[in-house]
Amino acid sequence: MKRLSVAAMAISMLALPYAAHAQFAKPEDAVKYRQSALSVMGTHFGRIGAVVKGEKPYDKASVEQDAMLVETLAKLPWHAFTPGSDTANSKAKPEIWKESDKFKSASDKLVAETGKLSAAAKSGSLDTVKTAFGGVGQSCKACHDDFRKK
Amino acid sequence: MKRLSVAAMAISMLALPYAAHAQFAKPEDAVKYRQSALSVMGTHFGRIGAVVKGEKPYDKASVEQDAMLVETLAKLPWHAFTPGSDTANSKAKPEIWKESDKFKSASDKLVAETGKLSAAAKSGSLDTVKTAFGGVGQSCKACHDDFRKK
Repeated sequence: MKRLSVAAMAISMLALPYAAHAQFAKPEDAVKYRQSALSVMGTHFGRIGAVVKGEKPYDKASVEQDAMLVETLAKLPWHAFTPGSDTANSKAKPEIWKESDKFKSASDKLVAETGKLSAAAKSGSLDTVKTAFGGVGQSCKACHDDFRKK
Repeated sequence: MKRLSVAAMAISMLALPYAAHAQFAKPEDAVKYRQSALSVMGTHFGRIGAVVKGEKPYDKASVEQDAMLVETLAKLPWHAFTPGSDTANSKAKPEIWKESDKFKSASDKLVAETGKLSAAAKSGSLDTVKTAFGGVGQSCKACHDDFRKK
């Protein structure tokens, strides 16, 4: 029975291309990766924000490009919250690992909201973009409130 | 005449969604952005490298995903080499701004090579992936040799 479950685990590990344990040599690498992905995502989200706030004129192609990048990058950071990667230069709260189901839900929510933002950007309606932008922003904030140190 | 050229410049600036001057509030922001994009790109390129070197089994879907990310991220850093962003924590050589045509060719070359890598990954042939991986690697190296401080 034990041997069987070990085999099953090995198979499920092989089935996950993003199995966290195999992807980063050191916890610091995982921290750098997730911070970098979130930073680039934040830049492009901020560019849409400038349009939403009326600081920049609405250009459909630019917003579409930024939204595509936000959607793509939003999928990346989560597999980099590897066990033990709550290092000194990270703002990750221990709750990420203690309440991993809740953290997973929060990241899934962001991914879903960024998908909606991308669809909104394709629609060409600034009002739709504004609504979807708000959804992504709320999702960022909810996760930061619960899982990121001040 | 002067007024006309200012107007023409203003129009050409509006036409460039990624006009560098408007995208980053501070040189440090540009540095952080390009370093982050290159770092995430490097992680995914390294994952394909592990497959190419035989350290990891070849999984078509994973390599495709990594190559898509490399291709997407390879387009991002270049508009962030804004004038004056050769700051203390950057390894950017002054040649980036002095030989901007050459730098542009080098970055265009990387973008083209990463497109080939993405196509190779879709083909499902590991040999094709290996060749395209080499092309991207040479393109990274050539640019680092000429434009990045040791």
